[in-house]
Amino acid sequence: MEQNLSLFYGLSFLTAILAFLYAAYLYLWVKKQPVRNARIQEVAALIKEGANTFMRREYRILAKFAGVIAVIIFLLLPSPVWNGSPLVNLSMAIAYLFGTIFSAIAGKIGIMVATHSNSRAAEGAKEGMKPAFLIGFRGGAVMGLLVVGCSLFGVAAVLMIAGDSSILLGFSFGASSLALFAKAGGGIFTKTADISADLTGKVELGIAEDDPRNPAVIADNVGDNVGDVAGMGADLFDSNVAAMASALVIAESLSDGGHHTISMVFCYAILGLLSSVIGIATARIGKNGNPTRALNSSTYVTTGIFLVLTALATAICPGFSWRIWGASATGLLVGVIIGITTDYFTDDTKPIVRKVAHASGSGPAFTILSGVSYGFISALPAMVGIAVSALIAYNLCAPIGEGFAIFGIAMAAVGMLSIVGMIISNDAYGPIVDNARGLAEMGGLGEQTIATADELDSAGNTVKAVTKGFSVGAAGLTVISLLGAFMSEANAALSQAEMELITGFDIMDPSVFFGILIGAAIPAVFSAMLILGVDKNAQRMVAEIHRQFQTIPGLKAGKKGVKPDYDKCIDIATSGALKELIPAGLMTIIATLIVGFVGGPRAIGGFLLGNITSGLLLALFMSNAGGLWDNAKKYVEAGNEGGKGSEAHKAAVIGDTVGDPFKDTAGPSINTQITVVSLVASLMSGLFVAFSLFG
Amino acid sequence: MEQNLSLFYGLSFLTAILAFLYAAYLYLWVKKQPVRNARIQEVAALIKEGANTFMRREYRILAKFAGVIAVIIFLLLPSPVWNGSPLVNLSMAIAYLFGTIFSAIAGKIGIMVATHSNSRAAEGAKEGMKPAFLIGFRGGAVMGLLVVGCSLFGVAAVLMIAGDSSILLGFSFGASSLALFAKAGGGIFTKTADISADLTGKVELGIAEDDPRNPAVIADNVGDNVGDVAGMGADLFDSNVAAMASALVIAESLSDGGHHTISMVFCYAILGLLSSVIGIATARIGKNGNPTRALNSSTYVTTGIFLVLTALATAICPGFSWRIWGASATGLLVGVIIGITTDYFTDDTKPIVRKVAHASGSGPAFTILSGVSYGFISALPAMVGIAVSALIAYNLCAPIGEGFAIFGIAMAAVGMLSIVGMIISNDAYGPIVDNARGLAEMGGLGEQTIATADELDSAGNTVKAVTKGFSVGAAGLTVISLLGAFMSEANAALSQAEMELITGFDIMDPSVFFGILIGAAIPAVFSAMLILGVDKNAQRMVAEIHRQFQTIPGLKAGKKGVKPDYDKCIDIATSGALKELIPAGLMTIIATLIVGFVGGPRAIGGFLLGNITSGLLLALFMSNAGGLWDNAKKYVEAGNEGGKGSEAHKAAVIGDTVGDPFKDTAGPSINTQITVVSLVASLMSGLFVAFSLFG
Repeated sequence: MEQNLSLFYGLSFLTAILAFLYAAYLYLWVKKQPVRNARIQEVAALIKEGANTFMRREYRILAKFAGVIAVIIFLLLPSPVWNGSPLVNLSMAIAYLFGTIFSAIAGKIGIMVATHSNSRAAEGAKEGMKPAFLIGFRGGAVMGLLVVGCSLFGVAAVLMIAGDSSILLGFSFGASSLALFAKAGGGIFTKTADISADLTGKVELGIAEDDPRNPAVIADNVGDNVGDVAGMGADLFDSNVAAMASALVIAESLSDGGHHTISMVFCYAILGLLSSVIGIATARIGKNGNPTRALNSSTYVTTGIFLVLTALATAICPGFSWRIWGASATGLLVGVIIGITTDYFTDDTKPIVRKVAHASGSGPAFTILSGVSYGFISALPAMVGIAVSALIAYNLCAPIGEGFAIFGIAMAAVGMLSIVGMIISNDAYGPIVDNARGLAEMGGLGEQTIATADELDSAGNTVKAVTKGFSVGAAGLTVISLLGAFMSEANAALSQAEMELITGFDIMDPSVFFGILIGAAIPAVFSAMLILGVDKNAQRMVAEIHRQFQTIPGLKAGKKGVKPDYDKCIDIATSGALKELIPAGLMTIIATLIVGFVGGPRAIGGFLLGNITSGLLLALFMSNAGGLWDNAKKYVEAGNEGGKGSEAHKAAVIGDTVGDPFKDTAGPSINTQITVVSLVASLMSGLFVAFSLFG
Repeated sequence: MEQNLSLFYGLSFLTAILAFLYAAYLYLWVKKQPVRNARIQEVAALIKEGANTFMRREYRILAKFAGVIAVIIFLLLPSPVWNGSPLVNLSMAIAYLFGTIFSAIAGKIGIMVATHSNSRAAEGAKEGMKPAFLIGFRGGAVMGLLVVGCSLFGVAAVLMIAGDSSILLGFSFGASSLALFAKAGGGIFTKTADISADLTGKVELGIAEDDPRNPAVIADNVGDNVGDVAGMGADLFDSNVAAMASALVIAESLSDGGHHTISMVFCYAILGLLSSVIGIATARIGKNGNPTRALNSSTYVTTGIFLVLTALATAICPGFSWRIWGASATGLLVGVIIGITTDYFTDDTKPIVRKVAHASGSGPAFTILSGVSYGFISALPAMVGIAVSALIAYNLCAPIGEGFAIFGIAMAAVGMLSIVGMIISNDAYGPIVDNARGLAEMGGLGEQTIATADELDSAGNTVKAVTKGFSVGAAGLTVISLLGAFMSEANAALSQAEMELITGFDIMDPSVFFGILIGAAIPAVFSAMLILGVDKNAQRMVAEIHRQFQTIPGLKAGKKGVKPDYDKCIDIATSGALKELIPAGLMTIIATLIVGFVGGPRAIGGFLLGNITSGLLLALFMSNAGGLWDNAKKYVEAGNEGGKGSEAHKAAVIGDTVGDPFKDTAGPSINTQITVVSLVASLMSGLFVAFSLFG
């Protein structure tokens, strides 16, 4: 085994380095593209400065937080340092810090690339669809390659050095705790600015989205970067690490001692990254091509390459099981199917978006009611998809041997996330071209360029549906395997304490049921806290914008040389986001601790289940309803149902505003919340066994 | 045992008859009150006619539906008639029909009383708070006494005649299947009319809520009766029967063969009804008293009486266990606590409603976002309450013997619902005084009378929070005990088929997990279908109202003698409700069948759990968010945040409109949906064991 594994470690590092090099090449290519317009250069510099300020202040807070957690981990985990072995605790604490640092670096570099790409994509849009698309896509690809490279490198390094997969849980917890706060903070920032800019600009004054008179317009563009690029990168880094970590923890406990299975996890991850590299390198768009089709087809190409490569590897490598390949392929295909069904609910060429746009003609209440309803319905196909893929993966792998069934589910998650490099490229493309659109408007590049940028932006929104399908689905499967990881960690502690082992979590057991109900309430409360953060913060910013319009002479009229105070708005968004960032995340961790120390490990099993069940439902509901409202608004703005300025348009803008924190703050944060809770539970399992009230 | 039980049967019938007699006395008292105003008589007659027309058309459809189901039951349940004994199937089918008929009668009589009480309460409000309150409350009490009397009588009669508690599940299914459709149909009717009347009248024209020029105003008042009175009566009849039925099914399977436990269920139900009679008889309000306090204090009085009486009974009757009394008392007290915490989120003297009203000043998007957030948070205390009461009841009763733990949970539900007679009185009071307010306005009874009626109406909205706490909490506990009932029914079938018995539902079992995820999606889809029904239907009605204002000369100006075409609006609400009534309910039943026949009994266990978990969350969220928006609107209308006509008011009205189908259509229907699914599962358990694909 050792030799085999060393080979895969080596290959992991090599592939990661290859990805880094390719990312560096793409970054240099993007930087080489020209920016000639002085106004664009000026605004782009403001955006970059705003984003860097926010990131610096955010990371300063998070560094303190991570430091405190690292000390707690050293003192208590996996077992109190005065009882156990200090060296293990130290490794765990270091792995944790390592996870946070990797996550921070991925976010930081993503921001750097995105704030370089946006102005170049705007200039590119002057030349046409093709150059602008390539700049946006390659900028996004830098982020995608880095995130996946970092996670592969990090996981391989931690496992190689520590030699114990449970230390990986610490690394994963580092990644996900940082992701939780980065996602929440960035999400609150971006939506505070977006909502305030829209309500005061579009709704009250009837000026365009990125009109430079609007004091919130720079903050809005900063938000796209800190929320969508940095937050999303941290999120998918976390999912990817968690999926690999849980698969590796389970693999180690298998009857073969992880002989082939550990190699298989690395092999598939390596091939996933390679497939993404090929997919990125071959992504093309015709001169006047359709950017949505270009993005989606590169996803499908990557999927196909991955399936073929892993099939070859499974055929060649001795001991690789076809059943596990099947589980992995099931995960990936179900991810694609979830994406396509989600697309049905949010694509404006399909009936649902049009129905909501039509309902808007009767007033905003109908926009909200129809959007909420279709959002609820849209959760069903994905929930069924996750349920079915878990059932198939489990039954495919159960015959291999004991424990392999859960490993099959973990590999379905790994399969779903295998092409995450491609997914992130598509996802990060969105905020870059969104920024480019704003810059084109503020730089006065003319109608034609704005229209091109608009089309690129709209493609970014549409492919989001597909990518979100992957991330939510993978989170669902990962958490089931984390539940397996939790059970094996808890049983290790139970057997040490000579107590009865856990063989499962029976829903008729009142401790489990107790955990389930409370776990189910947590994602709702968590989402509410984030949305309230946006709501309160946006009210402050709207007041500030009103003040500026009233007190700065000539601003509203657009007098030449009169500029709003952009910095004040960036500052409001920043302080508000930093204030609201910690409580929601901390609440979920504390709730896990309370349930664990009150109800014991069985209650925690229920808690994780309740959390994932309602978490998936709410995440899908909020992401899809938000996307639906956004596109319904765009559909009206394209001249349907009365077009811009009509009553339907006003109603659709209100729907979009409600949807903004749904889809970009709360919805995507729930994923991370679920993972964090699962990892806290796994890490604390020993303490819950030792110190629970009723367990 | 037989002698003992006969005594309790006899006492059950006697108490039920006592309740019927007292209800008759109250009905005659209400009828004796004078109605002098000719306009009120005329409008009240229109409301009564509209309500009766709807009920007649609704029951005609439901009769056909019930007939089909009865035939299916006869053919297939509990086992196919060609394999089993036809007599048992026939009993089951008859019990089912008996359940539907009782439910229909309770609804029908409730409507009769409510449509008599409304005009009398309006006249009473001319004299002052006290007479109007008494008429509204006693009208509601007729409904409360009838529903509880019917359920006690029905359950005792079915069990006595059939001698087999599983037949009770058929009776309960009859009650709940009718409730599901009555609630959905009535809920769609009432909110179609309410929303349309508000949007066209209040928002567009700025006329008062019950202005007789509005073509939808009669339909709106009809809706209060068919949705709130009839629907709510059917709903609580169903909950009460389900709680008793599941307790009795479990009691029969206990080691004492139900010797004392069956008696105990009946004894507590009898004492609950007696406590409600005393509470109703002693309800009083001072000459200028506070109606909210009067309603809530009668709830607390009833609670106290019930606790004392059951303690006495437990002390006197040989074999009654104090532990079971404790479980029951826990249920009741937790019900009160849930009600009080819910009240915190929806009472306009508390901060949450004021925050939402304040947020409305920044526009409707903030009304929606803050209401959604607080709605999510409001679910937490109730979820914790249900989880804790289940944990306490289970642990209190587990030491008595095997099976008693689940019986304890069932008795906690019985305890929570013990004072349901009082709860319904308070609940039915709401629509009566709401109607009275409308009649006072349409009859031109003057500002003073309208103000009195307004205060009475607002009290009705506030106590709803407390009563909804009981009904949602009880549904939660009942379904856990129905899960127990399902397990014992499934095991009976498994042992007959000589298959491995179910000892629990392990969430790590992929069949269970499969069921959980799909079960969790169902309440969301169900709610969405109902809300979309309201949404579509209201759009039709709004168009019709616009047509009338445009084509009927002098209507908008309020020219004397010009009347709108009220009937057309009633007809739109009726046909729309009847069209949308069946699909949502049928979807939940079909989903249960698919999961059962695909995944087998273990998947169904998971399905029920997922269903109850997300169902509770969504029911609490939607009911509370709706109540919150309603009261925030009322708070603004009382002159705060700019008062009527301000931007905050417009935003608050949009919030209220969104909340309407949340709180009065989807939210309260979820309860019934959960019960129906559980009963379908229990009844079909034998077939799922015999014919499932993967089970």
